[in-house]
Amino acid sequence: MLAASSEPLAIPGVRLNTVAAGIHKTGRVDTVVIEIARHAAVGAVFTRNVFSAAPVEVSRLHLGSSTPRLLVINAGNANAGTGAQGQRDALDVCAAAAASLGCETSAVLPFSTGVIGQRLPAEKMVAAMPAAIAGLSDDGWAAAASGIMTTDKVAKVSSVAIKCASGPYRVTGIAKGAGMIKPNMATMLAFIATDATVEPTALQTLTRDLADRTFNRITIDGDTSTNDSCVLIASGCAGGPSLTPAHPDWALFTRGVEQVFTALSRAIVRDGEGATKLVTVSVRGGATEQACLLAAYAVAESPLVKTALFASDPNWGRILAAVGRSGVPDLRIAEIDISIGDVAIVAGGEPVPGYDESAVARVMQTAEYEIAIVIGRGPASTAVLTCDFSFDYVRINAEYRS
Amino acid sequence: MLAASSEPLAIPGVRLNTVAAGIHKTGRVDTVVIEIARHAAVGAVFTRNVFSAAPVEVSRLHLGSSTPRLLVINAGNANAGTGAQGQRDALDVCAAAAASLGCETSAVLPFSTGVIGQRLPAEKMVAAMPAAIAGLSDDGWAAAASGIMTTDKVAKVSSVAIKCASGPYRVTGIAKGAGMIKPNMATMLAFIATDATVEPTALQTLTRDLADRTFNRITIDGDTSTNDSCVLIASGCAGGPSLTPAHPDWALFTRGVEQVFTALSRAIVRDGEGATKLVTVSVRGGATEQACLLAAYAVAESPLVKTALFASDPNWGRILAAVGRSGVPDLRIAEIDISIGDVAIVAGGEPVPGYDESAVARVMQTAEYEIAIVIGRGPASTAVLTCDFSFDYVRINAEYRS
Repeated sequence: MLAASSEPLAIPGVRLNTVAAGIHKTGRVDTVVIEIARHAAVGAVFTRNVFSAAPVEVSRLHLGSSTPRLLVINAGNANAGTGAQGQRDALDVCAAAAASLGCETSAVLPFSTGVIGQRLPAEKMVAAMPAAIAGLSDDGWAAAASGIMTTDKVAKVSSVAIKCASGPYRVTGIAKGAGMIKPNMATMLAFIATDATVEPTALQTLTRDLADRTFNRITIDGDTSTNDSCVLIASGCAGGPSLTPAHPDWALFTRGVEQVFTALSRAIVRDGEGATKLVTVSVRGGATEQACLLAAYAVAESPLVKTALFASDPNWGRILAAVGRSGVPDLRIAEIDISIGDVAIVAGGEPVPGYDESAVARVMQTAEYEIAIVIGRGPASTAVLTCDFSFDYVRINAEYRS
Repeated sequence: MLAASSEPLAIPGVRLNTVAAGIHKTGRVDTVVIEIARHAAVGAVFTRNVFSAAPVEVSRLHLGSSTPRLLVINAGNANAGTGAQGQRDALDVCAAAAASLGCETSAVLPFSTGVIGQRLPAEKMVAAMPAAIAGLSDDGWAAAASGIMTTDKVAKVSSVAIKCASGPYRVTGIAKGAGMIKPNMATMLAFIATDATVEPTALQTLTRDLADRTFNRITIDGDTSTNDSCVLIASGCAGGPSLTPAHPDWALFTRGVEQVFTALSRAIVRDGEGATKLVTVSVRGGATEQACLLAAYAVAESPLVKTALFASDPNWGRILAAVGRSGVPDLRIAEIDISIGDVAIVAGGEPVPGYDESAVARVMQTAEYEIAIVIGRGPASTAVLTCDFSFDYVRINAEYRS
């Protein structure tokens, strides 16, 4: 049985703290530390942007040599495009955190989000580490969700309680958006933890699979960040067997974890920069899932489609044109169907007889709906989440650094 | 010698007229007819959007069976996504125009631009044909440039006089934008004419080459239209030899024609929906031109880069991140250089020592400048033209149909 929790559930074996290290000029909280119990398993996936940020490179390196004991996350500075100095800065922060906690430097994973190309104020973070570590507590999830925000309006946290034969388990996760969001094999900073025991290889595979099905199916602006990172922690503190795909509880357990991944990825798009709508673009009838993704992203990232979503304007010609330029092989217009919500608009490449535009406009005035596209080339399907392009999108990104 | 003309030059052998057929509710001009002398040669390229509009399909068909005598162009309705009815409507207009002019229906090429998915008001255009044909004149270029506008703010017309050994020649062209612009092997309605005699195969190759180097290197919103069409007419009315690449005047003549293509493609981006800046994104050092194009378009179409252009914000991290996600093989951050205008920002993947952000901000406050990117993987290079993303872009596209 799965039960979503409206309050974040503490995860035994995971303690958190959130402080203001002074990266933000406003003095708001900007630095989060997450301590992980010894013997926990940790899965992680990172951005496929080839210019990955210094903290991503250090985290990859450290994961290869130690089992993580501590995550150090800062908002307000991405420590990307900062070269060798950026790596030294990330390592200095790791070393200070390790000294405070009493672990190897390589057991600390750094994560950063914020402006690209400015030097990380590492000395401020180094100075903040002793108090940050001293204040670790079980119930810091809500504060941590706030501490990693940049242009996010809403803190993103999700919890599920899982009841299955091998024991009750908990899953809690936090994530942040809200711009430069088209995760590629990972996402823009998500940290999810469970108290279950999970075999490490199975956990890494699960992390990648779930990221691929949730965070890797969302877009706000098509811009894959240099800092995308997604970490799944299994602390093992609930006791119970080491779960693997062979265990009878695996299906229910992973459904619970997926529920948290899905909730966080939807929350990221719903809080997309300037977004007023959460729209699922589903494509069915592709020869391959890759073909469906091409068509779905062409629609989900078209500025013309996204401004029409903002205006609640049933301008379906823009959807048709985006599919037509998407690069899907062998498309035939006579096999294209398009519907929005429960209203069929295009069938066989032409407007449905008696199509009533006002019915679609009513669907588009709601906060969440689906654009469903059938391309008639095979059995595959997929769906991606997107949002609209509003005046506020331009305002936020024209003013971000000023 | 080439001499640009500020007033459109009449092209012997080409007559035009512009009328209000009633497609626009406002009563503004919306229909242009262009008559072409017998024995002229015509080159044409069309959209690679696989859902090409009915007029594109009819034009392709007609080009295969007759030498064109007449182009009929309407604004306000794209006649795309209109199925078999759309083809019948386009053919009805061609037949009416042919009857008025006295030629075969297949000698008429139809072109449409405007909203996708609504039936063409063919009967209004049919009714307008007799008067449209009766009013053909040599000096109709400026009116025609206005008659094909949709969301364009500025009419786009360009003329060049060419003096070479085989005779003086003239080239005049018109084009329209201003949204759904990422031409793919063609552009959104451009009509260019010269009075030179050009061998037909050479003319078609020239049309494709020039479209590829000019209209196919621009983007406003990344959305390739269903209706892109580019036509180059060589009326032959200046007399002189039939020009081919083997003729000594070919280089100068084609430079003159290219000048008109370039002027029109720049005018389209400068008048991009909501645009306040015209920015060249050049990429050098690619293994292939295709690799350079991938990087250039990733930058030129990034909503985050385009909003930073609008704000004159030297947020070069967004440029770096876009190159990093562009899919160019084997990129290494240590080989990346970025400059804006004459200011070097990034060298070897890191900020240039002593980099002065205020100097870049001054460049970005000008109306036209270049973002130059070096990727250090080989000898190829390319450049694309783009514009910024402003509040007005959202306003125009949220309100387009209302």
